[in-house]
Amino acid sequence: MVEPIRIAVLGTGQMGAGIARLVLDKPGMSLVGAYARRPERVGADLARVVGLERDPGLAIHGDLAQMVRDGRPQVAIQATCSRLDEALPEIAVLLQHGVNVISIAEQMAWPAATSPAAARQLHRLAAAHGVSVVGTGINPGFVLDLLVIALSGVCLDVASISATRVNDLSPYGRTVLDSQGVGLTPEQFRRGLEEGVVVGHYGFTESIHMIAAALGWEIEHIEQTREPIIATVPRETPRVRVDPGAVAGCHHRAVAYRDGRPVITLDHPQQVAPEAEGTVTGDCIEIRGTPDVRFAGSPEIPGGQGTIALAVNMVPRVLAAAPGLYTMADLPVPAAIPGEARRGSRESAGS
Amino acid sequence: MVEPIRIAVLGTGQMGAGIARLVLDKPGMSLVGAYARRPERVGADLARVVGLERDPGLAIHGDLAQMVRDGRPQVAIQATCSRLDEALPEIAVLLQHGVNVISIAEQMAWPAATSPAAARQLHRLAAAHGVSVVGTGINPGFVLDLLVIALSGVCLDVASISATRVNDLSPYGRTVLDSQGVGLTPEQFRRGLEEGVVVGHYGFTESIHMIAAALGWEIEHIEQTREPIIATVPRETPRVRVDPGAVAGCHHRAVAYRDGRPVITLDHPQQVAPEAEGTVTGDCIEIRGTPDVRFAGSPEIPGGQGTIALAVNMVPRVLAAAPGLYTMADLPVPAAIPGEARRGSRESAGS
Repeated sequence: MVEPIRIAVLGTGQMGAGIARLVLDKPGMSLVGAYARRPERVGADLARVVGLERDPGLAIHGDLAQMVRDGRPQVAIQATCSRLDEALPEIAVLLQHGVNVISIAEQMAWPAATSPAAARQLHRLAAAHGVSVVGTGINPGFVLDLLVIALSGVCLDVASISATRVNDLSPYGRTVLDSQGVGLTPEQFRRGLEEGVVVGHYGFTESIHMIAAALGWEIEHIEQTREPIIATVPRETPRVRVDPGAVAGCHHRAVAYRDGRPVITLDHPQQVAPEAEGTVTGDCIEIRGTPDVRFAGSPEIPGGQGTIALAVNMVPRVLAAAPGLYTMADLPVPAAIPGEARRGSRESAGS
Repeated sequence: MVEPIRIAVLGTGQMGAGIARLVLDKPGMSLVGAYARRPERVGADLARVVGLERDPGLAIHGDLAQMVRDGRPQVAIQATCSRLDEALPEIAVLLQHGVNVISIAEQMAWPAATSPAAARQLHRLAAAHGVSVVGTGINPGFVLDLLVIALSGVCLDVASISATRVNDLSPYGRTVLDSQGVGLTPEQFRRGLEEGVVVGHYGFTESIHMIAAALGWEIEHIEQTREPIIATVPRETPRVRVDPGAVAGCHHRAVAYRDGRPVITLDHPQQVAPEAEGTVTGDCIEIRGTPDVRFAGSPEIPGGQGTIALAVNMVPRVLAAAPGLYTMADLPVPAAIPGEARRGSRESAGS
């Protein structure tokens, strides 16, 4: 029998918990370590804190190096942050200990967009320790970049690209809702943008760089706009109620220019309860070229599940890669990894 | 300046001509050789025979080894056949001469489906000569396999997969139309199936193996059905006229079973002038799992252009790969390669 792949998870929020749960569901994987930044979680029992049905019998570590020494993971999945500067110290420790890394930090999807020097350093560090590191997630990392690139592969030439992801923020917690200005007045939204509290989507720059690099395009500049989505009817979710006139979300758009022309347009309006106003959610990729290509799905691929799945499904790709820093476009596509236990229970419940 | 990649094309039919044309359109590539099986084409001028706007000044070779010695290609694109047994001798010569190979022979998408021994031999031969070989094309190679696999990557688990490609055969020549029984009576269609003249789609076994291998599924058996699509109104294309009651095409379906249950269903009804009866063409992928995923595009990605584009766009992937035999799921996704000249002419014609 093949030994299960030893996995550690960093982060015990919604994403970290989902990743831990999925790893435990895969017979080919073994959860051997958990790490949290929040001091109050350190030392606590992982299964109890995040509510796991299967108990791996792991205490949450607050010392990353110690977690690695105790659990000896082959791959660590980082779900602690969005920003590169926050992600780097943890990733550096992991790489130095010979652990492959999959990060769902948005800026890790294309680290050079934030800091070319940091990207070079990551590559050197990974190569020096014989391991690999990749950033992934539903977006950036899949819908608005990897899928776009793959679809461009059927084109003789490409003139321009538009891709839109209309999603529903209702399943998300306060941190995400705040970052989109949900519940604010339009005036508060404007101020929030100026103060950097309302940020919209993290990841357009990363997606655009990934697409442009794959297509050999030199991008001159990127224009980004963030507009409030104002509710015209009451919108309610388990976590928030938005009255008419208040902000239900943020329509974030990025347009990338090449030779003075807009060539990549990415739209990502994020809001709570879009169905309350008849807004249909979904993902849509349109390539103008030879031939024109349009691929779409509705509703949108769920962001939380999609990101958790991608993080876990990339494990074999990262293990198979030569040492170094990768983006999603540099590795073979992920595939769903069989979860025998779950399938078994489904079968007995079904036919 | 970087030297252009030296490319040779095998085949001077519609596909070979399209590949030659596209290579000539890419500033990063140079067409250095052409080979044809048809004796009457040997020695003829490539540009004249296949109608190229840009003349690479190449005579068509009938001796593959000589073509390689003369042109010294780094990559050869094979567009001479569909079957593995026909593809192998040419590929073997190329690999032995240290030339990387991209084949659009349908059975090369997953050679082990036809012959595991041949697949092993291809891998050994490629590895021994330090080059790589991959089979690609719109289908098999992209729509009903690579895209399916990529989309499964966002799933926590997958219960079953359905994918459908409804296409229009009108642009195709007599060989393709005959293989789908276009123009036959229903009785002739049945007899054509028995005699192996009507074959339907080449590639379901390949696509199913590719998906199953990526998802770690063991397939017990594959059931295939080929039904005539009977015209109820006249259908006309530049090449053929189908009267009501005659066969307008072939609806080919494959169902793969795992643990006694159908888990992969691929549908590919191919016909001329589907719009004559209100049939909408398109590609659609549906994954039942967590989450369910559905992605679709209409009309279908054009098969001819798509296959030509994929063959050329995979050139950098094959060059970057470690020596050996690959499938589309083993390599990073293709991306459209910039064709500066064409873009330039578009710009001057446009804004």
